Amino acid sequence: MTDELRSIGAPLTDSWPALDNVVGEPRPLPAAPLPAVRPSVALLTDRYELTMLQAALADGTAHRHCVFEVFTRRLPAGRRYGVLAGTGRVLEALPHFVFEDAELAYLEQNAVVDRRTLDYLANYRFTGTIQGYVEGEVFFPGSPVLQVEGSFAEAVLLETLILSILNYDSAVASAASRMTSAAGNRPVLEMGSRRASEQAAVAAARAAVIGGFAGTSNLEAGMRYGLDTIGTAAHAFTLLHDSEREAFASQVASLGAGTTLLVDTYDVKQGVATAVEVAGTGLGAVRLDSGDLGGLAGEVRRQLDSLGARDTKIVVTSDLDEYAIASLAAAPVDVYGVGTSLVTGSGAPTCGMVYKLVARADSSGVLQPVAKASANKASVGGRKAAARRYGRDGYAIEEIMVTGPDTAVAEWTPQSDDLRPLLAPLVVDGAVDSRWVGPYGVANAAINHGMVRAELPRGARRLSKGDPAIPTVDLRLDDLPD
Amino acid sequence: MTDELRSIGAPLTDSWPALDNVVGEPRPLPAAPLPAVRPSVALLTDRYELTMLQAALADGTAHRHCVFEVFTRRLPAGRRYGVLAGTGRVLEALPHFVFEDAELAYLEQNAVVDRRTLDYLANYRFTGTIQGYVEGEVFFPGSPVLQVEGSFAEAVLLETLILSILNYDSAVASAASRMTSAAGNRPVLEMGSRRASEQAAVAAARAAVIGGFAGTSNLEAGMRYGLDTIGTAAHAFTLLHDSEREAFASQVASLGAGTTLLVDTYDVKQGVATAVEVAGTGLGAVRLDSGDLGGLAGEVRRQLDSLGARDTKIVVTSDLDEYAIASLAAAPVDVYGVGTSLVTGSGAPTCGMVYKLVARADSSGVLQPVAKASANKASVGGRKAAARRYGRDGYAIEEIMVTGPDTAVAEWTPQSDDLRPLLAPLVVDGAVDSRWVGPYGVANAAINHGMVRAELPRGARRLSKGDPAIPTVDLRLDDLPD
Repeated sequence: MTDELRSIGAPLTDSWPALDNVVGEPRPLPAAPLPAVRPSVALLTDRYELTMLQAALADGTAHRHCVFEVFTRRLPAGRRYGVLAGTGRVLEALPHFVFEDAELAYLEQNAVVDRRTLDYLANYRFTGTIQGYVEGEVFFPGSPVLQVEGSFAEAVLLETLILSILNYDSAVASAASRMTSAAGNRPVLEMGSRRASEQAAVAAARAAVIGGFAGTSNLEAGMRYGLDTIGTAAHAFTLLHDSEREAFASQVASLGAGTTLLVDTYDVKQGVATAVEVAGTGLGAVRLDSGDLGGLAGEVRRQLDSLGARDTKIVVTSDLDEYAIASLAAAPVDVYGVGTSLVTGSGAPTCGMVYKLVARADSSGVLQPVAKASANKASVGGRKAAARRYGRDGYAIEEIMVTGPDTAVAEWTPQSDDLRPLLAPLVVDGAVDSRWVGPYGVANAAINHGMVRAELPRGARRLSKGDPAIPTVDLRLDDLPD
Repeated sequence: MTDELRSIGAPLTDSWPALDNVVGEPRPLPAAPLPAVRPSVALLTDRYELTMLQAALADGTAHRHCVFEVFTRRLPAGRRYGVLAGTGRVLEALPHFVFEDAELAYLEQNAVVDRRTLDYLANYRFTGTIQGYVEGEVFFPGSPVLQVEGSFAEAVLLETLILSILNYDSAVASAASRMTSAAGNRPVLEMGSRRASEQAAVAAARAAVIGGFAGTSNLEAGMRYGLDTIGTAAHAFTLLHDSEREAFASQVASLGAGTTLLVDTYDVKQGVATAVEVAGTGLGAVRLDSGDLGGLAGEVRRQLDSLGARDTKIVVTSDLDEYAIASLAAAPVDVYGVGTSLVTGSGAPTCGMVYKLVARADSSGVLQPVAKASANKASVGGRKAAARRYGRDGYAIEEIMVTGPDTAVAEWTPQSDDLRPLLAPLVVDGAVDSRWVGPYGVANAAINHGMVRAELPRGARRLSKGDPAIPTVDLRLDDLPD
């Protein structure tokens, strides 16, 4: 036995504890099965949000009026822009952010917070105001993509949930936008559910569509957000049958000749020949999921054409990312399917967005800008407004960050025609603007993203490394004449 | 206006559509708020699982007895081992994998599948058998970490959900194990909720604890899995107050002197001095969340000691990963807090596990091994058994993959004392073994991981790049004498 083993108290015996009896005999299942998920989202929260609340309730500062801003300090290395996604999901989660008996009992039994705090939480509803960039909008370092305003108590509690949603969804939408950009007019389909945590997969499908994807394999995302869903068969279906021909015949009989047949289980050339024999020249598509996709697509296209299946499309999948998509631009590919790279943000699985207190009322109720000085994390105090400036050709030139006296910033609207303001009201006094939620919100966000991406300078869509597509420029209102 | 803008039909007008009226006026919120999550997990599924089912129900192959295996073809570059996590969550999800009215209505309205398939789904319950590596176990390329056996129909439907859970949870547990290994006897705390999708964050906290983490900031994970939760205050709490001193005094008054004060909002040296003045030398800990943590920890330790706060611990956070943790081994750090790197798998955000049909009954009901030949994805047909071989010093030497005639493999048990079998029954005829679910399952898994990691050859815990810690060796039963 090793020292390490001894140090964790594990006997190295013939019968291995884990397969036999680690801490007792199997117990019967609980009467009610454990929920895999719970509709309440209030405990999807870092413990420190609640301990801060407790201390602030005790000293009275919990009721100070506050402004929190969500922004990212930098884009992932080499990226030209980010794409905001998740806002609609934040708004959908808001009515579920309530502390009911189960949550309160847990917090009490584990002494997470005191009685006063439990009483506050029992009555918690967000009654503040949220402004932000519209979902699907592009963002740059420092862009205040969400601004949450209310008492410290009600705003601080939302930090973890808001960042969880925006950091993941925006990472996926940002990757999606690069992929659809690289694909040009060819549709890109989302098939990454198996490579993302199961509920994250729904968010990923939604974010992909905001980033320009044409559909998703994920049925739950289809149901919740009205997305087009896609998918016909995997290799298992071919292997299940006694021959590839029987598998194809079964699929065509059930799904019609317009289906997509997966032709690479054994030999691609034979698979394509069999597919057209079985389905006829009206076969919808063949899918290639392995090998040198570019070369293979060319061979398969020639084979399909020679068989008379000129309208049969070629779908390629298998470890695609934006670079692989771009490298297939000259290949006779009709549709791209993307999985792993998309749902993991293509190398940037989270956006690094932060939720920072930028202003709070002082003891006399006057809103004061605040900022920390921590090394590498220094922040700019005070509420921001934001706008994008356009040139005469319609392309974006600059991101404008407006700072200055709070009232002036809050009321600021651009005076010149070349500036488009970027902050829109999303929640007013606790009421959610329904334009941004549900299937309707996703459709809006996707349209919005298409428009704003098209306005970026052309270099913004290149995949090569580079700086943000447009610079961020500060505008201090107190530097201006009245 | 640019061509690109014209091509998507977007008018570039003074009033920007997204902020005004993209596709109509705001509509009132739906009477019932959209659920942020739904307890049913059956539609967290790729569409093709259902279309395959439809075709297989039509041709009768849906009822063929099948064996599917989950494995990964390779470990992330340079990793020595993977850590299996998520098994308990798969088992917990199983009773929720049901198609109720809402799911069936969606599938019917969108013509995803035909009536026969809807009827099958309405009655779907998994009645098969699942074996697998015990949660917390280490795995290597090809290790059959989960084996699902039943009719094609009932087993194929679980593919997407099982892979979603195991791919993410195991990615996190694998990263966690490297971090806790690097931390030695110092505790590591999970604080990554804001950098993972909100429900994934719960899974990440759970997986982190399986990988050896001492606690999590995520309250929902604490509630569902009985994990220890941690956290006291963020920079916002300091900024909320009129001075750092007032913030510290408030926190100590509410949470006691044993709390952890965050001392780097303004100036660390002043922050530490104020912390000890306010809390006294019984202060529990100070947290450093920015700057050169190694150098800073040394300075803060000396300052704390000189102030008489010799028992006050130093907690460091801020972009730690296993390498940063290891580099702080000589610094006077007491506790590590890890966020982003952990919940994103420290560079490997998904495990690449696949769910492959390895055997199925033929038309006469005899189980036959099956395998595809796709380029780069060729698989080994037939059910596997697995065992780990140990040397006389108690350390693992090899991973044994057993193949051969199906009955012989299914019934195989090691005949020699140096082999430990790795497949344990988890679900038998649809009934879940309760040892592996809920808080009890997590505790078991964490203990199990501690034991099996300690048995790996010492080189396995190095962070430098290398091959899998032990080789995988094939054992073909039909090569052996009877």
